[in-house]
Amino acid sequence: MNIIDIIEKKKVGGELTAEQIKFFVDGFTDGTIPDYQMSALLMAILLNGMTDEETFAMTDAMLHSGEVVDMSALGGIVVDKHSTGGIGDSTTLALAPILACCGVYVAKMSGRGLGFTGGTIDKLESIPGFDTALSEEEFFEVVKRVGCAVIGQTANLAPADKKIYALRDVTGTVNSIPLICASIMSKKLASGSDTILLDVKYGSGAFMPDPESALELAKKMVAIGTIAGKRIGALITDMQQPLSDHVGNSLEIIGIVDVLKGKKNRLYREIREVALRLLALTGKYTLQSAEEAFDSAIDSGRALAKFAEMVRAQHGDENYILHPERFEIGTRDVVVSPCDGYVTSMVAADIGRAVTRLGGGRMTKSDEIDFSVGVIMHVAIGSKVRRGDVLCEVFHRDGKGLDEAKTLISDAIVIGSEQPAEHKIAYAYVGKDGVEMY
Amino acid sequence: MNIIDIIEKKKVGGELTAEQIKFFVDGFTDGTIPDYQMSALLMAILLNGMTDEETFAMTDAMLHSGEVVDMSALGGIVVDKHSTGGIGDSTTLALAPILACCGVYVAKMSGRGLGFTGGTIDKLESIPGFDTALSEEEFFEVVKRVGCAVIGQTANLAPADKKIYALRDVTGTVNSIPLICASIMSKKLASGSDTILLDVKYGSGAFMPDPESALELAKKMVAIGTIAGKRIGALITDMQQPLSDHVGNSLEIIGIVDVLKGKKNRLYREIREVALRLLALTGKYTLQSAEEAFDSAIDSGRALAKFAEMVRAQHGDENYILHPERFEIGTRDVVVSPCDGYVTSMVAADIGRAVTRLGGGRMTKSDEIDFSVGVIMHVAIGSKVRRGDVLCEVFHRDGKGLDEAKTLISDAIVIGSEQPAEHKIAYAYVGKDGVEMY
Repeated sequence: MNIIDIIEKKKVGGELTAEQIKFFVDGFTDGTIPDYQMSALLMAILLNGMTDEETFAMTDAMLHSGEVVDMSALGGIVVDKHSTGGIGDSTTLALAPILACCGVYVAKMSGRGLGFTGGTIDKLESIPGFDTALSEEEFFEVVKRVGCAVIGQTANLAPADKKIYALRDVTGTVNSIPLICASIMSKKLASGSDTILLDVKYGSGAFMPDPESALELAKKMVAIGTIAGKRIGALITDMQQPLSDHVGNSLEIIGIVDVLKGKKNRLYREIREVALRLLALTGKYTLQSAEEAFDSAIDSGRALAKFAEMVRAQHGDENYILHPERFEIGTRDVVVSPCDGYVTSMVAADIGRAVTRLGGGRMTKSDEIDFSVGVIMHVAIGSKVRRGDVLCEVFHRDGKGLDEAKTLISDAIVIGSEQPAEHKIAYAYVGKDGVEMY
Repeated sequence: MNIIDIIEKKKVGGELTAEQIKFFVDGFTDGTIPDYQMSALLMAILLNGMTDEETFAMTDAMLHSGEVVDMSALGGIVVDKHSTGGIGDSTTLALAPILACCGVYVAKMSGRGLGFTGGTIDKLESIPGFDTALSEEEFFEVVKRVGCAVIGQTANLAPADKKIYALRDVTGTVNSIPLICASIMSKKLASGSDTILLDVKYGSGAFMPDPESALELAKKMVAIGTIAGKRIGALITDMQQPLSDHVGNSLEIIGIVDVLKGKKNRLYREIREVALRLLALTGKYTLQSAEEAFDSAIDSGRALAKFAEMVRAQHGDENYILHPERFEIGTRDVVVSPCDGYVTSMVAADIGRAVTRLGGGRMTKSDEIDFSVGVIMHVAIGSKVRRGDVLCEVFHRDGKGLDEAKTLISDAIVIGSEQPAEHKIAYAYVGKDGVEMY
């Protein structure tokens, strides 16, 4: 087998065999296939596509390039939720304790933030003492005892993905549905859950620009997960504005505590939708019995207590969860509306960029994060505003990045004279049997 | 300007500007753009194509990456013929003296052979003393005085092409019409002739498999040459069998001497066709007056004398031209027909490979060539043969590679029961005003 034959075959639109795909994934990962051949192949894949069988083979080869976690020792249902990322997306932090209250295990490995998107691990580390680097043994022990735990992704999960992604990033080969799918699914399948809910976002703050392309990616991922023998579904959700009113690390923890206390905002509604779908996917619940379980977990206060329990189990100070006013928050400033009208759209990515400018995110992997800064949105798409109304609060440290952040936010919130149509939280659900539109 | 934007643009089928094309050609040549980005771009170009304007811009950027020869000091018409290569293609060796006899200059820079194709420079070096590495000054002096000279390509002609071709060769991006066109034309335009006849070959011994793809490449090259202000045309010719009956280095010189002496075989007919088109292109001749000039050059013996004169001027022993029996030729063996029938087709590339196995060609660039070995074909496509008839003579040195060569040749000459249709030498001619079919 040789790489040039494989490139030539994909170049003319041929279907690669699982052996050929394993050959190039392994060869590129171990360095026997040079990057210039891999990038030519990636471009051919981007332009000529891959069948579900090819995408599965690529996912499978990538997932077996590293450690594959075995969760069977937990002896129960292990669920996972994967979001394709966005601004103010702190759903994982609420879902973990809620789902644990519903009797399923959540053993979650999350990422850090880069560029305009925040990372779950960074948000958790804003809780003093919280340890996101538990040993595998302790991680399992916490999951078994508490029902949920969230740690950083271990280095050895799908190393092929890390290397391939770095090359795609600099060769214009990022936006390929099969390659995105293989990248996400190789890590998901390696992390060992049996039930997976994918939250595929579209809009100005997401990877996929429109609901149609998000749906296409979702279908492909559900197909691959199903071939791999997982219970899997995907929600297509809106990321045309920040998901949480709170954007920033400590601020998002505060926002999550609000949700766990029963505050029924947009973040709450999305978390509920994801939780119901995930619980129904396990087969242990119907959508209806899942609703009852979800509402009971919140209303009884058990979900909030479970979050505090998880924080304590991971060596964090649970008092920050029970008394979130303890978080140190930056100096307050505001962005006000320049005119009367309605919020017609938002450039969500620019809200994320504003938080990064304030010091709340990373421009490069080695940047230090300031947990205290961020924004609290006072408006959403459709809000009616009058000139001078506060559009959002901005929390900064000593004015760092403040002017730039305020300009970014001011430009990102578009005010018009017509009230826009209502924004639904979800656009569609993709199950193994088909698509359900919202 | 940055390379990722350029890759992204070509990836979605956009048209690159001349500035963008110059940016990536220069950047790749000077090493600021790494090979993995260039190979992704080359694959996107291969799959999404390039307009004539883009192809011209790429050709232009590549030709200006090195020396551009100025032939204006010769003070006359300078013609060039470029063949896309093949087996037994020694047309240049006859064309140079014939065209010089017709009053135009031939200042030819040729290549060496690699793989199954022979190289004009290697063939000339089989003449004892012949110097293919004249200084630029001496080269011009010989052209001016004799009318023709043939030397090896200088290292500094279109270095960008050399580097880009090496990458294409290992990334499955060779068979792209715009890239082939830019590769050939950058060297042609850099070598300074004002009138160019392209001989684009198709068939089992050529780069393009069929006449249609050869025609497409020819049209593109004629368009680019015309934009560059050259008088240019292209013949599409058959390379489904060796062009000359003689294949091998000294043997091809012997074959050329036969043609210059007036032997009217297939090689002669092709040389005549190329010469007439080239002379008509100059504007100095019509096709009819070109015929008279060609025939007179041969019949008078002036063309043969001119070849001897060129050999002498380039320090070769002209006696080998006047008495070709002086060439040392290997030990004779034969391949005979295993049955009665007609020669229905040939795998021309395998005849070339057989000569390489005998030692008459190179597997790698550093291989030494044995000028004395080769084959003389006794049949062509359409020949009627009887069992035991000699299909071809094989000349070897001490049996080196003989068995392998004979097997290759035997398998390459396909004998069937039906007489095939006549093979035309030319399929079409492409001028700046359109295509003329034969």
